[in-house]
Amino acid sequence: MAEAYRFAPRGDHEAVEGGLTLMPRFDRDGLIVAIAVDALTNEVLMVAHMNAEALSRTIAGGEAWFFSRSRQSLWRKGESSGNTLRVKELRVDCDQDALLLKVEVAGNGVACHRGYRSCFYRSVPLGQPPATGSLVLDGAMRHVP
Amino acid sequence: MAEAYRFAPRGDHEAVEGGLTLMPRFDRDGLIVAIAVDALTNEVLMVAHMNAEALSRTIAGGEAWFFSRSRQSLWRKGESSGNTLRVKELRVDCDQDALLLKVEVAGNGVACHRGYRSCFYRSVPLGQPPATGSLVLDGAMRHVP
Repeated sequence: MAEAYRFAPRGDHEAVEGGLTLMPRFDRDGLIVAIAVDALTNEVLMVAHMNAEALSRTIAGGEAWFFSRSRQSLWRKGESSGNTLRVKELRVDCDQDALLLKVEVAGNGVACHRGYRSCFYRSVPLGQPPATGSLVLDGAMRHVP
Repeated sequence: MAEAYRFAPRGDHEAVEGGLTLMPRFDRDGLIVAIAVDALTNEVLMVAHMNAEALSRTIAGGEAWFFSRSRQSLWRKGESSGNTLRVKELRVDCDQDALLLKVEVAGNGVACHRGYRSCFYRSVPLGQPPATGSLVLDGAMRHVP
């Protein structure tokens, strides 16, 4: 069954960046970073990883699958929460080591398991010594049922 | 000098996800993924990596620094092209292993070295066998001087 999850081998620099063949670069753990953004607002919702099987399933079915590094297993985003991600558009970057998913979030529209619309619910103040490290919570991202 | 680039040590699960202290998770190579988006439109422009020094410099100075994995060196984005990234806002995700930079691109506004506004200038058609792998070019992203 591994056959089904095989992608084109990496070509030369020009083929990867200028060509029209998908040749994703999976890292030494077999993963590629994938960024999910809201298809309407472009808001970045979450960052996760895919292995070849997760990417194949996402392309074929149009619903986002990832690979959990902590659990070391494939997961269909939202399979327990109901907040699945319907992929409206999938893009790849210049060197083909990152994916961009423009999605619609099903269920209550909450992409983050912490109950926020996006996983990026805290900001880092700029122009200060980094060691200070205090974050600012963006309460407006919280889902209110 | 390494002192200046030290962040808070990782706390427990609740401290990392629910707390207000920046405790970024750098991977085994000392890197964390950073996504740059247009501060006005939210369009994802590029994905790169930061080490502790790049993150410290970005926080302190408000201009984006990264660490190049291919060159194994620190780089200030745009130092040769002039397309520097002025960081308007910096965010961290729930498990603090990804950063989001909302930026203004200086110079001619082109974030990708291939001459596109964004590195994500190709899309992957959905609902087809993945092995087909043909990409579609988004010519509208091309910078026209």
